[in-house]
Amino acid sequence: MVHAEASNFAEGISKTQAYAQVLEQATALFEDQRNWICNLANASSLIYHALKSLPTPSNRVNWAGFYVCSPNDPSELILGPFQGKVACQTIAFGKGVCGTAAALKKTQLVPDVENFAGHIACDSESQSEIVVPIMKDDNVVGIIDIDCAEKNGFGEDDQTALEELARLLVRSCDF
Amino acid sequence: MVHAEASNFAEGISKTQAYAQVLEQATALFEDQRNWICNLANASSLIYHALKSLPTPSNRVNWAGFYVCSPNDPSELILGPFQGKVACQTIAFGKGVCGTAAALKKTQLVPDVENFAGHIACDSESQSEIVVPIMKDDNVVGIIDIDCAEKNGFGEDDQTALEELARLLVRSCDF
Repeated sequence: MVHAEASNFAEGISKTQAYAQVLEQATALFEDQRNWICNLANASSLIYHALKSLPTPSNRVNWAGFYVCSPNDPSELILGPFQGKVACQTIAFGKGVCGTAAALKKTQLVPDVENFAGHIACDSESQSEIVVPIMKDDNVVGIIDIDCAEKNGFGEDDQTALEELARLLVRSCDF
Repeated sequence: MVHAEASNFAEGISKTQAYAQVLEQATALFEDQRNWICNLANASSLIYHALKSLPTPSNRVNWAGFYVCSPNDPSELILGPFQGKVACQTIAFGKGVCGTAAALKKTQLVPDVENFAGHIACDSESQSEIVVPIMKDDNVVGIIDIDCAEKNGFGEDDQTALEELARLLVRSCDF
């Protein structure tokens, strides 16, 4: 199997089909592999390329990746694998969209980051954002973070699929 | 500081200038951060965007990232942070370009991957490759791996700069 093909999404597929492929490919990749760094690296590639294959606004994704709980400080998120431009290295629980999702243990769907109090502008190009907590039992082990260079980049369909991916990641990885 | 700006490379800069920016930005990013996952994630972004900003063949980079020594098996590399399409999860020391660089502790500059005996085709698009070992004392802790969709994608100037980056990574990260 040429692994890169997992990141190839057919032209004209729907968002539902793209996320179905992400989940299917991720499930297959994680089958014999529980290393979380390896799995989050491939997962960020799948998400990024899935969104890039879709019509606007999805294809205006400009960052897709992960923050995980810092091994040194349980109240801090630290940058994990991602696709996109250089990103903030650490984010305190409660700060910005990522820190809020981690503190509240609740997905943050932000149609316009400028209206989110305390938003951390790692990239001034980002206009909207979705952050989904990755929960092991009742504890946050990390978050999925995706930015879009357009407002209203994400909807409830993204939320539903990414929350399913978060559950798959917890089942499949030793965090 | 908006971190994403570190990945912005001015149009028309030379390869020497691009790598100088990579090393300068990486040095600044690593100053207060020794987490290797976080630092390799940002380093892969810097390398990828630096090469994308250059003339062909450099801008035909299609994968830039890292493999590290597996915590479970010291004779195996496991996928770390990267930019590009989904990649092979594990590579045995001695196998393919990455495994050869790790086994020989020596940079592999491969102008045409089809002529490299035992090349692992993670992505059929990749035509040339450079792999630089990251050495801590006399031990390999990981490798920098970059693929290009054109033959002869890398030269001695890439090798020199990436070997300097590898030394910076060893000094700056707790592997």
